[in-house]
Amino acid sequence: MQVNPIQLFDAESSTYTYILSAPDGSGAAIIDPVDRHLARDMAHIARLGLQLTHVLETHAHADHVTSAGRLRAMTGAKACVPSGCGIPPAEVQLEDGDLLRFGAREHIAVIHTPGHTAGSMCYLWRGNLFSGDTLLVDGCGRTDFQGGSAADLYDSVTRKLFTLDERTRVWPGHDYQGQSVSTIGWEKRHNARLAHRSRDEFVTLMAALELPRPRLMDVALPANRKLGLAHGI
Amino acid sequence: MQVNPIQLFDAESSTYTYILSAPDGSGAAIIDPVDRHLARDMAHIARLGLQLTHVLETHAHADHVTSAGRLRAMTGAKACVPSGCGIPPAEVQLEDGDLLRFGAREHIAVIHTPGHTAGSMCYLWRGNLFSGDTLLVDGCGRTDFQGGSAADLYDSVTRKLFTLDERTRVWPGHDYQGQSVSTIGWEKRHNARLAHRSRDEFVTLMAALELPRPRLMDVALPANRKLGLAHGI
Repeated sequence: MQVNPIQLFDAESSTYTYILSAPDGSGAAIIDPVDRHLARDMAHIARLGLQLTHVLETHAHADHVTSAGRLRAMTGAKACVPSGCGIPPAEVQLEDGDLLRFGAREHIAVIHTPGHTAGSMCYLWRGNLFSGDTLLVDGCGRTDFQGGSAADLYDSVTRKLFTLDERTRVWPGHDYQGQSVSTIGWEKRHNARLAHRSRDEFVTLMAALELPRPRLMDVALPANRKLGLAHGI
Repeated sequence: MQVNPIQLFDAESSTYTYILSAPDGSGAAIIDPVDRHLARDMAHIARLGLQLTHVLETHAHADHVTSAGRLRAMTGAKACVPSGCGIPPAEVQLEDGDLLRFGAREHIAVIHTPGHTAGSMCYLWRGNLFSGDTLLVDGCGRTDFQGGSAADLYDSVTRKLFTLDERTRVWPGHDYQGQSVSTIGWEKRHNARLAHRSRDEFVTLMAALELPRPRLMDVALPANRKLGLAHGI
């Protein structure tokens, strides 16, 4: 049965944060929380009466600082990160194929999708794919740092994501144009970068992008490897 | 079972638009769509593969123009409005207590909540209250035009909304601070204007607000009485 997450937005970095709430009220998880919205996110949790048990990261972000460490301290939630992202303070280091359980009967399937970064992962919950910066609505993440690889991203998307049920909802890590949700079926047929394009064509396209270095990268990346906590754990 | 809507935002007027999608994929409705986001909203409907059958208004808005008429023309959806809001081109004129059906087994309960405007209504679907400008997160709509009445708003909220199940999620028509969703229980206990305040105290508070006239009122209100269509139907 289709159950949507609650989608929250950071206008500064155009980042989406997601709250996943068990429909029976038995627990909740948050994906990719942003440090400057800690109070907002805690207020949502309080207003909705949620018990937050898991904080997930899709990867070590280069464009904003996570609030995972502080959320963990305030709620007792476990910090859960991709094992290949170099975030040692997180107690749960996720591997491809893991099933993360929360609440009475919720589970999140962990899908390793290298490409945007070498360690990037996507999360699948009740027909909803949280695609991080791997697959965006009508686009995809950049592949030019943190072990990124256009060839890997192409394989991750075409072999692991585009093989999911076409009705799976795609909730991206960012959007810059108000496109907040899509489906696997639509992206397979229409994605401006990935649909109807060979692996070689995609690699050539990505190599030609010449993107500027993320403004916050030198601050955000070291901070995020400590879950956003200045002094580690 | 708790199923969330998809919440979309207009940053210019801080308006929330909601897409309600039947979990079994059998149909969809949209509440309070904004004209400048017609393309965005149509793109969401296309990407999600939805069949839009109903366009709802919570009231005749004074701060933005609706896209209801154009959405109706593009999708064949029925325009559904509160009967007391003076929007004659809408084919469905809703009354308090109506049950609006969409999809195979969805229904939206219609609750007349005068106060922000005389005709304002709230809609209840699967444990989600779409509260328009009647009840906002930690606040409420103004009551100084379009037949507005602080006393009526107090009665609507305290007698009709605060008597709903405390876990009912409250999805407001606007928010100006990133507060996107709440619950009846939280608002009963904490709402800055309505919790722990008598009717007389509330009326006095609202009378003292001295709010400026909405900038777009002279444009938006006549347009919205025609479903946003310049020349009526």
